[in-house]
Amino acid sequence: MTTHTEYLVFNTRQQRELINITARLAEIVQRAAIREGMCLVSAMHITAGIWVNDEEDGLKHDFLEWLDHLAPARPDYRHHQTGEDNADAHLKRTLVHHQVILPITAGQLDLGPWEQVFYTEFDGRRKKRVVVKVLGE
Amino acid sequence: MTTHTEYLVFNTRQQRELINITARLAEIVQRAAIREGMCLVSAMHITAGIWVNDEEDGLKHDFLEWLDHLAPARPDYRHHQTGEDNADAHLKRTLVHHQVILPITAGQLDLGPWEQVFYTEFDGRRKKRVVVKVLGE
Amino acid sequence: MTTHTEYLVFNTRQQRELINITARLAEIVQRAAIREGMCLVSAMHITAGIWVNDEEDGLKHDFLEWLDHLAPARPDYRHHQTGEDNADAHLKRTLVHHQVILPITAGQLDLGPWEQVFYTEFDGRRKKRVVVKVLGE
Repeated sequence: MTTHTEYLVFNTRQQRELINITARLAEIVQRAAIREGMCLVSAMHITAGIWVNDEEDGLKHDFLEWLDHLAPARPDYRHHQTGEDNADAHLKRTLVHHQVILPITAGQLDLGPWEQVFYTEFDGRRKKRVVVKVLGE
Repeated sequence: MTTHTEYLVFNTRQQRELINITARLAEIVQRAAIREGMCLVSAMHITAGIWVNDEEDGLKHDFLEWLDHLAPARPDYRHHQTGEDNADAHLKRTLVHHQVILPITAGQLDLGPWEQVFYTEFDGRRKKRVVVKVLGE
Repeated sequence: MTTHTEYLVFNTRQQRELINITARLAEIVQRAAIREGMCLVSAMHITAGIWVNDEEDGLKHDFLEWLDHLAPARPDYRHHQTGEDNADAHLKRTLVHHQVILPITAGQLDLGPWEQVFYTEFDGRRKKRVVVKVLGE
């Protein structure tokens, strides 16, 4: 069994961004030199997530608008009594989920025809990390 | 360490279906001949998911109705400007999440008393796949 | 490759509770004596989940209130025709997701600065279990 661990670092210009990381993950799998296994991709900050879906601008717009509807930014969250203003980002991360496990088959990410992996930032403009751990043989 | 990979293929008759795949997964674990490990089950198409919950008709009805409330089918999604009409299916998949990891203990799926695994199709009537990858020893 | 499996048992006093289990998971990882690998934490009962977020009372209050808004307790769920009264708990578990995979690096849980792991009980006051399976080397 082999393991290989890398960390991706993000410092987005916008408060909210969707960043397609599929190619970067494929490179990590190449460096790991694993033929069969699994690749964990997990946002280490609690206002960001990982989303697997379509690379299509309209859908990405719909997705962010929909998250704003289900978990709106509002001043009156209890969390804001601590001085924070990002409670909605914590809730959005929960809806999206913060991690994914990608199968590795024959040395490649074993994804469906439209599956793309996105880092979803909901409270950016500061340094954040994602852990990528590959395990297999 | 051993790995074993299979693909399940679905071509549902309805646009939306919940299909209990627990018995099929148990058979794959038997074929994998792994005593201790993990079994990744991941929908490879971005309008389908994997749900672990109760095999009870009323609850399955509530679940689909509730998803329609939180992520309604509507004509005015931006994604539909591409000619697609299934933006709600992408959002429903996000709520349900598209994958699950099942523990394998003593050669069996290590599930709770009511845990059943469902393939959740939100835009069916065409061929779709689920990857099942077992890893362990 | 080594695996190590333990079960956490909960019997909450309240119907809904958030229980921080990060320290207990760290102890399991110590007992597993694994340097590099993954730790699956999965609620075995279908009205409970696992949530990774901030240990902050205001946010936990916001989180439960928000789940009640998105998946309200109501008498008229179809599931309740079976005699049950907890359909909302099944739906809340779905939103939160019922499992997480924690990376293990250099013998420790490899978590971000604010990541804490919670058992989220939505229909408590009875015995329930969480499976924790560590896999690595």
